[in-house]
Amino acid sequence: MKKVFLIAIAAFLFVACNCGGTGESDTADAVINNICQRKSVRSYTAQTIGDDTIDILLRAAMAAPSGVDVRPWSFVVLKDKSNFDAIFADNMNLPKFKEAAVVIVLCADTTRAVRGSMNGEREANPIWRDDMGACTENLLLAAEAHGLGAVWTACYPFADRMATVKAELALPAEVVPYCIVPIGHHDGTTLPKDKYDATRIHNDRW
Amino acid sequence: MKKVFLIAIAAFLFVACNCGGTGESDTADAVINNICQRKSVRSYTAQTIGDDTIDILLRAAMAAPSGVDVRPWSFVVLKDKSNFDAIFADNMNLPKFKEAAVVIVLCADTTRAVRGSMNGEREANPIWRDDMGACTENLLLAAEAHGLGAVWTACYPFADRMATVKAELALPAEVVPYCIVPIGHHDGTTLPKDKYDATRIHNDRW
Repeated sequence: MKKVFLIAIAAFLFVACNCGGTGESDTADAVINNICQRKSVRSYTAQTIGDDTIDILLRAAMAAPSGVDVRPWSFVVLKDKSNFDAIFADNMNLPKFKEAAVVIVLCADTTRAVRGSMNGEREANPIWRDDMGACTENLLLAAEAHGLGAVWTACYPFADRMATVKAELALPAEVVPYCIVPIGHHDGTTLPKDKYDATRIHNDRW
Repeated sequence: MKKVFLIAIAAFLFVACNCGGTGESDTADAVINNICQRKSVRSYTAQTIGDDTIDILLRAAMAAPSGVDVRPWSFVVLKDKSNFDAIFADNMNLPKFKEAAVVIVLCADTTRAVRGSMNGEREANPIWRDDMGACTENLLLAAEAHGLGAVWTACYPFADRMATVKAELALPAEVVPYCIVPIGHHDGTTLPKDKYDATRIHNDRW
């Protein structure tokens, strides 16, 4: 009995030290690991994705930084697979994309202004595209964290792809389709790349 | 003795279920929480940042997705504070930025080509800016995960800011300074925003 008790205590301490001992460090490890595990997944299983999960992915996307807090983003969430053919018609048209459980089109209102100028007019936003890049990355990282596979397929600045998607989704004139992200449960065949390259790092000047 | 044994077993099961029982879910929570906790921190303590941590931030940045795997990024890591004045001269010149422990300038080689064309020439890369947005967001998320504060200050496409930074860091002709990220231990005064907005979500079409 005493032996079993000691084993139970030892097991408790092992689990406690590995999971809760250094809270900040564990969080850091989980976050960095997730960033490094993210990969472009183009092949999916037939499993569906719940609405709660989709909402979390969009919550993560909307938490992106935004210059002067303009938040240019909107999202069209496609679950009706009969639309997938048209969306991907001009975008490589890979049949595997159509196996995704959901497709999210990230859109930008490029006219959402930065601030009023001296004469009362609104200045255009010169950095909406940078906000959209961060927004898309947040979505991809949130998908990876939920065991999902996703891939960023560019739409902006390619005129043919934009025209097709804009017409198909009935986007307003001022809204640009920025990119298309198919999402599904990945089939496990895609592995992450190690892209660390020390030659890309310079100290104090180039 | 039997009672203590049962308590130890119960404690073990409690910790195991909360930390290791649903590994994917704990990771997901940590990742989403980190994304939502990230904020633009412009005020820092005097604490320094170790080289190992800086290396992890750069590893995260380089793990960003990149169209056709071009990886346009390079990084200039400034630790010599005597350079900070010049770097921020045309960029809002906020004195608080100069209290940062380190400043990272994210640069892009915009001429790094996508692929060979039919006549043997290289196509320019139309989406390097999107890669840089994802790269910057990864860096900011990695900083947040390590209890650090950082803020994305735009450089591209502002000609005056770019000219100053390019000259100061002796960047090669083909390299553009994309953005400047001061990083330090935050002083705890900046809170994250809840930017979730259900009106930005559309189903199947706009």
